[in-house]
Amino acid sequence: MCELLGMSANTPTDICFSFAGLMRRGGQTGPHSDGWGIAFYDGKGCRSFHDPAPSSRSEIARFVRSYSIKSRSVICHIRRANRGRIALENTHPFIRELWGRLWVFAHNGQLKGVKRLPLGFYRPVGTTDSEHAFCWMLEQLRRRWDRPPPVKTLAAEIRRLAQELNRLGVFNMLLSEGRALFCFCSTELAWLTRRAPFGPATLIDEDLTVDFSRETTPDDVVTVIATRPLTVGEPWRVMERGTFVAFRDGEPSG
Amino acid sequence: MCELLGMSANTPTDICFSFAGLMRRGGQTGPHSDGWGIAFYDGKGCRSFHDPAPSSRSEIARFVRSYSIKSRSVICHIRRANRGRIALENTHPFIRELWGRLWVFAHNGQLKGVKRLPLGFYRPVGTTDSEHAFCWMLEQLRRRWDRPPPVKTLAAEIRRLAQELNRLGVFNMLLSEGRALFCFCSTELAWLTRRAPFGPATLIDEDLTVDFSRETTPDDVVTVIATRPLTVGEPWRVMERGTFVAFRDGEPSG
Repeated sequence: MCELLGMSANTPTDICFSFAGLMRRGGQTGPHSDGWGIAFYDGKGCRSFHDPAPSSRSEIARFVRSYSIKSRSVICHIRRANRGRIALENTHPFIRELWGRLWVFAHNGQLKGVKRLPLGFYRPVGTTDSEHAFCWMLEQLRRRWDRPPPVKTLAAEIRRLAQELNRLGVFNMLLSEGRALFCFCSTELAWLTRRAPFGPATLIDEDLTVDFSRETTPDDVVTVIATRPLTVGEPWRVMERGTFVAFRDGEPSG
Repeated sequence: MCELLGMSANTPTDICFSFAGLMRRGGQTGPHSDGWGIAFYDGKGCRSFHDPAPSSRSEIARFVRSYSIKSRSVICHIRRANRGRIALENTHPFIRELWGRLWVFAHNGQLKGVKRLPLGFYRPVGTTDSEHAFCWMLEQLRRRWDRPPPVKTLAAEIRRLAQELNRLGVFNMLLSEGRALFCFCSTELAWLTRRAPFGPATLIDEDLTVDFSRETTPDDVVTVIATRPLTVGEPWRVMERGTFVAFRDGEPSG
């Protein structure tokens, strides 16, 4: 099983603290040692780092951790390979352009027979089930709309597509086009919104505490989404199986 | 004017030496201070780093320089903005998927009226002429072939498309799908092939000499392509205006 991490915020926010906890699960406190990747939006642009090496020993992960990149939308993934060999092209998150926006996708789970779903325009570069599922989802959106619909309409369609994929197995997913963060919980996903008054938080996987009241302004709203809660002492909301939530500016919407 | 750098090699090769020279031109020995980017293929996967900050002061550039990434195909660009504001989404190289391969593109020059060229599937994320030209080229290739033709046929078509774009202004270009590196010289582009017997090379822009005989094996063939020669004492071949060359495994082909 892989681990997912996402962030949606109303102001550019540093994800280093959560990233630090997750990266430890890549081969150190967890078995997810088959690579990792992260994508940060910056306006319409997107910066991404991928490494097929275990995250707990990755030089690129150390760099990302030390180099504070602030973003309002982040998707991160650490991998335990089940389908598709360990290779850069099989390392999440996957990225494609649709409607002049960059779409980022990460998935945890297995999907039986997903490769029988027909593709047209988007074709996988690697050999994972996940990238096939991503290409298929974008294909459906593209066929349906020539330009982006309102975000509520888009969210409803993404929820429907996610439910369809979920019938093939396990489909925990994070998807974004830079503004909204769409999350589907097949078996395991939890989220937490931090807002004023901010307090301290302590990572489960590393002996690290951050006092968010010193790092934030009173108007900041930051939601973190992860396969399993990353901190102790904070009110994580564990999602029910089969549920969907879209975040925008750190707030759940629709 | 921007600066381009590309590499094609028959074995995974470290581009750090040439990269060091080029990065100095980003705001230090040259005026190209509006961002930089680099993409390295690793199998079918591709790792890329982009930064709208000047390369000579970029933390990410320092990291890339110190972290030896070996690749057989590399495209790098430092930018002097003319069309499109300084922003991550306007920072070359641009990347899109076609036929299940990742295509990487960097351009130097200006193209008058390029945005009137019709697009269909691929749409620019940023506002540069360059990304529009790239989307248009991929569109033409996709319309013509449903799957990749032999590389010679592909090269001939890319040459034709480059010539068409070149009529709109200045179109120095590097383009790759991971195996071949396609280069079009509109006004300025030079290349150099290093092979046994290897000797020392000294950068023009930095006081740095590398003895390639100590870094290579006798079978290595490595071609470096750049806007202007990066070293002294090596037989750079300055391309004629309007010419095209495709490299594969470090050798010019077709």
